[in-house]
Amino acid sequence: MSTRTNATFPSPIPAARRWLEGVTLPPDCPLINVSQAAPMAAPPAPMIDAMAQALGDTATHVYGPDLGLPALRTEVAKQWSRAYGGHVSADQVAITSGANHAFATAIAALCDLGDEVLLPVPWYFNHKMWLDMAGMRAVPLPCDDAMLPDLAAAQALITPRTKAIVMVSPNNPTGVEYPPSVLGAAYDLAKAHGLTLILDETYRDFRSSDAPPHDLLTRPDWDRTLVQIYSFSKSYRLTGHRVGALVARADLMGSFETFIDSVTICPSQLGQRAALYGLQTMGDWVAEQRRDIQARAKAIRHAMPRIAPMGWRLLGLGAYFAYLEHPFDAPSDVVAKRLAQEVGILALPGTMFTPEGDARGSRHIRIAFANIDAPTIAAMFERIARLDWPLAPQGGAA
Amino acid sequence: MSTRTNATFPSPIPAARRWLEGVTLPPDCPLINVSQAAPMAAPPAPMIDAMAQALGDTATHVYGPDLGLPALRTEVAKQWSRAYGGHVSADQVAITSGANHAFATAIAALCDLGDEVLLPVPWYFNHKMWLDMAGMRAVPLPCDDAMLPDLAAAQALITPRTKAIVMVSPNNPTGVEYPPSVLGAAYDLAKAHGLTLILDETYRDFRSSDAPPHDLLTRPDWDRTLVQIYSFSKSYRLTGHRVGALVARADLMGSFETFIDSVTICPSQLGQRAALYGLQTMGDWVAEQRRDIQARAKAIRHAMPRIAPMGWRLLGLGAYFAYLEHPFDAPSDVVAKRLAQEVGILALPGTMFTPEGDARGSRHIRIAFANIDAPTIAAMFERIARLDWPLAPQGGAA
Repeated sequence: MSTRTNATFPSPIPAARRWLEGVTLPPDCPLINVSQAAPMAAPPAPMIDAMAQALGDTATHVYGPDLGLPALRTEVAKQWSRAYGGHVSADQVAITSGANHAFATAIAALCDLGDEVLLPVPWYFNHKMWLDMAGMRAVPLPCDDAMLPDLAAAQALITPRTKAIVMVSPNNPTGVEYPPSVLGAAYDLAKAHGLTLILDETYRDFRSSDAPPHDLLTRPDWDRTLVQIYSFSKSYRLTGHRVGALVARADLMGSFETFIDSVTICPSQLGQRAALYGLQTMGDWVAEQRRDIQARAKAIRHAMPRIAPMGWRLLGLGAYFAYLEHPFDAPSDVVAKRLAQEVGILALPGTMFTPEGDARGSRHIRIAFANIDAPTIAAMFERIARLDWPLAPQGGAA
Repeated sequence: MSTRTNATFPSPIPAARRWLEGVTLPPDCPLINVSQAAPMAAPPAPMIDAMAQALGDTATHVYGPDLGLPALRTEVAKQWSRAYGGHVSADQVAITSGANHAFATAIAALCDLGDEVLLPVPWYFNHKMWLDMAGMRAVPLPCDDAMLPDLAAAQALITPRTKAIVMVSPNNPTGVEYPPSVLGAAYDLAKAHGLTLILDETYRDFRSSDAPPHDLLTRPDWDRTLVQIYSFSKSYRLTGHRVGALVARADLMGSFETFIDSVTICPSQLGQRAALYGLQTMGDWVAEQRRDIQARAKAIRHAMPRIAPMGWRLLGLGAYFAYLEHPFDAPSDVVAKRLAQEVGILALPGTMFTPEGDARGSRHIRIAFANIDAPTIAAMFERIARLDWPLAPQGGAA
């Protein structure tokens, strides 16, 4: 039976979790789950108190506006204007049930069946999955050795059916922070061809620099070209509450509303109140989380020499992710499955982020390290290093 | 620009709400909002306490399984098996972010682009909107004078592209409870043609009878033919938390997971815990809500003689809805807009539930009466009756 979900591949994270069904891990290798980019801890106590208080308000329990709480839209507009040094107004903001929902909403508003969307490879798998299911065509856009999208290639891939170029920065899966110059050039390219640049900044708050990530919101008429996606899930530990945002031109809001109305009607009212509380009061806390994530990234870099002699390479590191090249003569999905079943490291293979048969994807492993502390990072690298691996290494001294 | 949201019409409820922007209602006509089928009160205190307690559990704040909390899936299976006298197992249940999300998920799992789905007219507008946006074809299925779907017509409308027949019972917008015989015949028709019957029972808990709504879950291999949709929003006053359910054959769950993963990842964790608490402890409370809604339906029936002389007719009454035929020589969207702006009654016109140009739809008004008590119902009918209406009535003595 041909259906829309047959048009794509199964969700990688549940699929990877199933590798461990019925598997008994070695006693000295309890599971290290680096498969999903998600905090595993609750939000801080004051945020939980604020949520408990919101439960006393009837409005928390009934439908809200499809496009989100006006107070939250206003706060996003205010803080974005300040953070990016540009101007965003409340009617240029919609609140969604997470960043995936934001992407699906944007695509429905921008594209028709069969339209083409440029997606840098490796891609965020849910972007590719949604384009497949929605009847659009994801056009793979190659990245260079620094894992940055090749914009000359992008220009050559644009056709009359192209409607948008998607970028994720800091990137999922590679962790790479796209420099402002790259984002600026992508914006210019999109603008020159009348396309939309969809920029997913889910991991924005974990960047290594204090400077604004780009100057796009300062450009005149930025909203003719840019649609920005944000998530409250990671920055405020609200994954279980499903809150994201879209920043876009006001005349797209009607289309956003139509789509949201037929899928979720409105985002979780409690989640939105928590997000608002977070934006208004938790700036210092978010900054601290960022320093913590940066320290973990540093621990990854320090641990690399432990496995570099076996031929492992670090291709990207930032935000929640390390992107590794493995040294084995086997595709990455085989390597990842054995990492899970033999040494208890659950990580996603590059094959889950690349088109079928992609030669580079079969060399890569994504480590979502946000949930593991520095000692666990060291332990993880020890496990990788000591493997009596039955696959022939392709290079490196043993 | 052609986009997927251009393929359908704007969301009726926000559109209707905009009729009142900048309008000053007469001082003796404060707004009576009967446009949306939604409780306007908070859930009862013990449910709120249970939610506050759930906030203390870390799992409430992090991602859960795409298909929902195992404990909630198990409880739905258990209670459905008992209520319908059939057998439902936990792996035949998925939890969604509301009933619209359940419908979208079911369509993605069952249909390919261009496939046809039979939708009784008047339809639930979000069903029609989703089919338009998803690239499927909604095929209007006429209803008879009792507002029940014409199954002989349905048979004639089936083509090789038909994948499903949709029914909503108790119906939105008409309020009509489909008799078990009609649902049984629809099931038989679907089964005979290898189709799926998608049965939306969002308003199930407000039915006028204690007997099971149908015997479909007792049929052998029911899951080869039936997909059932449920909502926790109305029965437990959880509209702001977005929780619904799909009951379907286990081998559809993989497709459901793929779709859900790319749209919302998982339903609100807090909402799911509230739904579980409700199912486990609030049976008596739900029964009381049902009696209350039935009393409101009775108040509608008692008030009808006040407007029947002007030519108004009651076409359907049940669950949350009264479906009225108006007597004026004007389309129902004009009548509804004037009801809103001149006497402060915000109700949706039949045009929002029917194909463009549908002659019956232009005669109908939906009253979602769940939020107004008996005195307000009486007042609403007074307002309708006393109108110095500048439209020529089509019939009835003045």
